[in-house]
Amino acid sequence: MSRVGIRELAAELGMSISTVSRAMNARSDVSAATRERVTAAAERLGYRPNQSGRTLRRGATGTVALVIQTNTARTEMGETFYFNLCDGLQQTLATRSLDLVVLPVGASADRDRFLVNAVDRHLADAYIVSNTDRTDRRIEYLTQRAVPFVTLGRGGAADHAWLDLDFEGVAAHSVARLAGLGHERIALASDDRDINSTWEYACGYRRALAEHELPADGGWEIRVPDTPEGGTVLADRLLDMSPRPTAVVLAQETLAIGLYRRLREAGVEPGRDLAVVGFRKNPVCDYLVPSLTSFEVSLVDYGRRLGEIVIGLLTASPDDEPVHEVWEMTVVPGESDAHPPCEKAAG
Amino acid sequence: MSRVGIRELAAELGMSISTVSRAMNARSDVSAATRERVTAAAERLGYRPNQSGRTLRRGATGTVALVIQTNTARTEMGETFYFNLCDGLQQTLATRSLDLVVLPVGASADRDRFLVNAVDRHLADAYIVSNTDRTDRRIEYLTQRAVPFVTLGRGGAADHAWLDLDFEGVAAHSVARLAGLGHERIALASDDRDINSTWEYACGYRRALAEHELPADGGWEIRVPDTPEGGTVLADRLLDMSPRPTAVVLAQETLAIGLYRRLREAGVEPGRDLAVVGFRKNPVCDYLVPSLTSFEVSLVDYGRRLGEIVIGLLTASPDDEPVHEVWEMTVVPGESDAHPPCEKAAG
Repeated sequence: MSRVGIRELAAELGMSISTVSRAMNARSDVSAATRERVTAAAERLGYRPNQSGRTLRRGATGTVALVIQTNTARTEMGETFYFNLCDGLQQTLATRSLDLVVLPVGASADRDRFLVNAVDRHLADAYIVSNTDRTDRRIEYLTQRAVPFVTLGRGGAADHAWLDLDFEGVAAHSVARLAGLGHERIALASDDRDINSTWEYACGYRRALAEHELPADGGWEIRVPDTPEGGTVLADRLLDMSPRPTAVVLAQETLAIGLYRRLREAGVEPGRDLAVVGFRKNPVCDYLVPSLTSFEVSLVDYGRRLGEIVIGLLTASPDDEPVHEVWEMTVVPGESDAHPPCEKAAG
Repeated sequence: MSRVGIRELAAELGMSISTVSRAMNARSDVSAATRERVTAAAERLGYRPNQSGRTLRRGATGTVALVIQTNTARTEMGETFYFNLCDGLQQTLATRSLDLVVLPVGASADRDRFLVNAVDRHLADAYIVSNTDRTDRRIEYLTQRAVPFVTLGRGGAADHAWLDLDFEGVAAHSVARLAGLGHERIALASDDRDINSTWEYACGYRRALAEHELPADGGWEIRVPDTPEGGTVLADRLLDMSPRPTAVVLAQETLAIGLYRRLREAGVEPGRDLAVVGFRKNPVCDYLVPSLTSFEVSLVDYGRRLGEIVIGLLTASPDDEPVHEVWEMTVVPGESDAHPPCEKAAG
């Protein structure tokens, strides 16, 4: 018998998985009416969150490992993602008496070998792998070893379980906002590594340009290091263009810090002379003036959902399909894209 | 036979433990001459870093756990401490084939119970406990259970192993800088929780005021939440005072963010009208103008030393004294305390 999962429940209701999950978690940003509809449908279809009706296939350790890289520019600048994610993740794992351990992969470590070592030592019953690349040997390795795992970020060939933020949707939404203001030359800035999220973001950007019948130019897709200096390099690249783009969307919102600073040094006012839209609403960017338009996600809820998926892995039967889930984000409008294009400044 | 430890080596050389440790790690901020002196003395006295001559008392897991709290304002604002520390810690543990696991204590967890649970489940052979309070039940518990552990931050009654930043020395140095500029009304701002580092910092502040024969006023010791809003509250408290302090030293440097903002709203220019000195040089504060005078620490080196102490715990014999080590920090002068007191603004 096929199990009713959150996917089937969402399809039945004509809602997104994200909304259904939030309703099941009784989130305050979901209306009471929606919560009631979801709860009623869940009961009717026999959907059980957390797979609480099933027995946990517990391994030797009773722990779940979250593998993260500590050697990123992001952890240097101020890490605001993983610790908050852990909060929700741990809450959900605790309902099944699973412990969460974080395995930090250091600067000098080979991340593939690191994971092989962790699996060989049986550090955990299941693994959550983050910072996935388009081609990621860790996914192949874990699949071959038949170790339960989920990737945070979908990774390239994705027939394993994954949970991902809606990079494509956010990029498309960002372009649509700018198109609505009359911007016609919209640049994209992203990380220069071959990470999957960057690829997804670029897909959404290109799709939205086409949908809004806006010109596309390969030269407007700028790839820079995801560091404060990367934002400076981005500014220089934009300032060198003629005609200059009137707006830029950022796959990594922290690029805005160096971008703002360098634009101002060149007498170009961010927000007024160049519109900017960031990815995730990040406390590290909170002090920026003008405030950066970006997209909100509850990391605690996201972590809770990740925990549900992990518990699902440990209770799965062979005919269960792996979870593939994109998590919606909500725009938080700022002042950084409040103006129509400034043709004089761009000239 | 009593073993020659880093403490005895430092005493023999008339150097600080921190300098000796950095010299043994061939750090570039230690002169070649110092390195040679330290190496020669280490050889003469038979000091072996990393206790590599001893057998590791390996437990069941081969792992070391770093316990950290994820529910702090600091992790919300941008965490720049633990991940960088992990890098050095892991490098050293790897030399003895020990794995590092991070155990995040979530917002809803009771941290005492969390640790008891981890110990009961034998998650690790040794524990590194951070965020220590003046009275910390976890220290008592681990001591009773005879579990190898070191605290990051000394904790109250400190006959266990600990490694700590030099909160007292930094506070005294900060007051001395300001006294040298002619400041006479120097306030202190710190976290309103009963954490040990805050207490150490206040001791250094009071000692330095006495040494420089400066007035002390209990009302100048301001305790606020360690959040961005805390900095705002701090500004309001300072602005309400008459006569107003002309300088403030911050036990938590991130308070500067809200402090700067609110001072400006009140027409008081940080640096010029109120001198400010922060604690740790923190990338989250890098954008502040005027740049914040603060104190640098290599977190990778600090993590390496922590790793050495952990390995020491796992190779210790009963007559070894626990390591008690204060890690020096180096001032990085900024523009935030570049001016003599502004009596007009303070009047």
